[in-house]
Amino acid sequence: MIDNFLTDIPLDDRSKYLSACRDLVTCSRSVFSRYSNSGFKVQKKSDQSILTEVDTEIESSLRNILYHAFPEHGVRGEEAPDHNPDADFQWVIDPIDGTEQYVSGMPTYGTILSLYYKNIPLIGLIDHPALHITISAGAGLGAFCNDSRLDLIASKGTHNSEPRIVTAKRANFLRGTDDSAYFDAIVRRFPYAWVFDNCYAHTVVITGAADAMVEYKVKFHDISALPVLVNETGGKYVSLRDKAPGHAAGSYSAAFGVPDVVDELVEINDSF
Amino acid sequence: MIDNFLTDIPLDDRSKYLSACRDLVTCSRSVFSRYSNSGFKVQKKSDQSILTEVDTEIESSLRNILYHAFPEHGVRGEEAPDHNPDADFQWVIDPIDGTEQYVSGMPTYGTILSLYYKNIPLIGLIDHPALHITISAGAGLGAFCNDSRLDLIASKGTHNSEPRIVTAKRANFLRGTDDSAYFDAIVRRFPYAWVFDNCYAHTVVITGAADAMVEYKVKFHDISALPVLVNETGGKYVSLRDKAPGHAAGSYSAAFGVPDVVDELVEINDSF
Repeated sequence: MIDNFLTDIPLDDRSKYLSACRDLVTCSRSVFSRYSNSGFKVQKKSDQSILTEVDTEIESSLRNILYHAFPEHGVRGEEAPDHNPDADFQWVIDPIDGTEQYVSGMPTYGTILSLYYKNIPLIGLIDHPALHITISAGAGLGAFCNDSRLDLIASKGTHNSEPRIVTAKRANFLRGTDDSAYFDAIVRRFPYAWVFDNCYAHTVVITGAADAMVEYKVKFHDISALPVLVNETGGKYVSLRDKAPGHAAGSYSAAFGVPDVVDELVEINDSF
Repeated sequence: MIDNFLTDIPLDDRSKYLSACRDLVTCSRSVFSRYSNSGFKVQKKSDQSILTEVDTEIESSLRNILYHAFPEHGVRGEEAPDHNPDADFQWVIDPIDGTEQYVSGMPTYGTILSLYYKNIPLIGLIDHPALHITISAGAGLGAFCNDSRLDLIASKGTHNSEPRIVTAKRANFLRGTDDSAYFDAIVRRFPYAWVFDNCYAHTVVITGAADAMVEYKVKFHDISALPVLVNETGGKYVSLRDKAPGHAAGSYSAAFGVPDVVDELVEINDSF
């Protein structure tokens, strides 16, 4: 479980890092804008996932800003080797989460950014340029959708009485070991569940449009922004399969959102 | 199966109706804009679904335009009695499909409009005001996303080799009779499937960002625009459970999208 948000980094410094993180969005959005009319090259990576020159350019632009602003900090991305891998501060960049959606013209892709200090999450941000939505949070600083403060518990009243769950797609549960029984149990218990597979699903939960999500066997950069975003909305974030988000390679699974619904999702997981 | 798109309505008239349908969007979007800052009242309907004053106002505004423009035509909506129910021409209005998403601040809701002549679909339109996307089609006139012509077959190459399926949520398959085995079979056969429950899923398929969808046990106004939209992109639309979209009350199920993927979804359905 990621339940440690205690940090000895002063509030003023956290505010500074949150501002710096939000400023990165100006840069990433300008790259998106530049390619929105010109089109871009698409290639397949060795794992059959898609990479565009937009991914590469956003990551290298953000890296350059961070290298100059915080020369002692580490930076991890998807497309280049780790920078300062032993530093206490580690920025994590996913330039385009949902590249396939981006290529297909779906507006639900996003840029994910986060900052960790000694493996404790300080800052988390998800930006959806096509939706004009940025959600961001800093430890102890609150969570925001653009400029509006987010509060999962207060926003819950607008929903149907039936909890609204999102889960990763069934294919995720089949990665490595076959955990599809957990997927099947979730959609049986929550037949109103949506299934979706990128950070738009995270945004849906964090902004209160769904109650909770199970993310399953994804990479660290896919969920790096989540713990602090969820915690700062008053929600609960529970790592599943005893894999806490850290800097190790591997796959990450978590249930997050409205606490009592998360508890139920964890309970179903514990039954396997 | 809805495979009858033959009509004796002249092409010029179809063009005129398509223009009229697109003009309705100016009206519905202006109602959305007006409420976007002021907020709106939300109430629960007897079936526990949500209704806002925005739904009601869009429908009544569109009805008024149609009553004056085409006094002999019929109009069916969600929130008022049928107008001229015996007329050959029937407009169908769903002012907000995905009202719960609209209320939650998710941008994936949409307005659905269509025109039928003697139960044959002539015009179909889905508008997503928050996404700035309108897809529209007229029989024999092509399908468009805003001003760009859509072609499902030509756009297919951009995807992963694994077909990308969308299905209605499992709860739909449990309405009335328990057809959940079909849902389970779909997500087993296509583990990359997304599950989503309003017209945004339709748009995803019609614009080629997913290959095919199974929509299940929904109302006529939910799918009224689909047959002509799908047909005009070069896709295939197959009614499941022998329920052709018509003007009768009831529930409607369909597989639609890229023809060979649709065939496979129909084959799975036939096996039950």
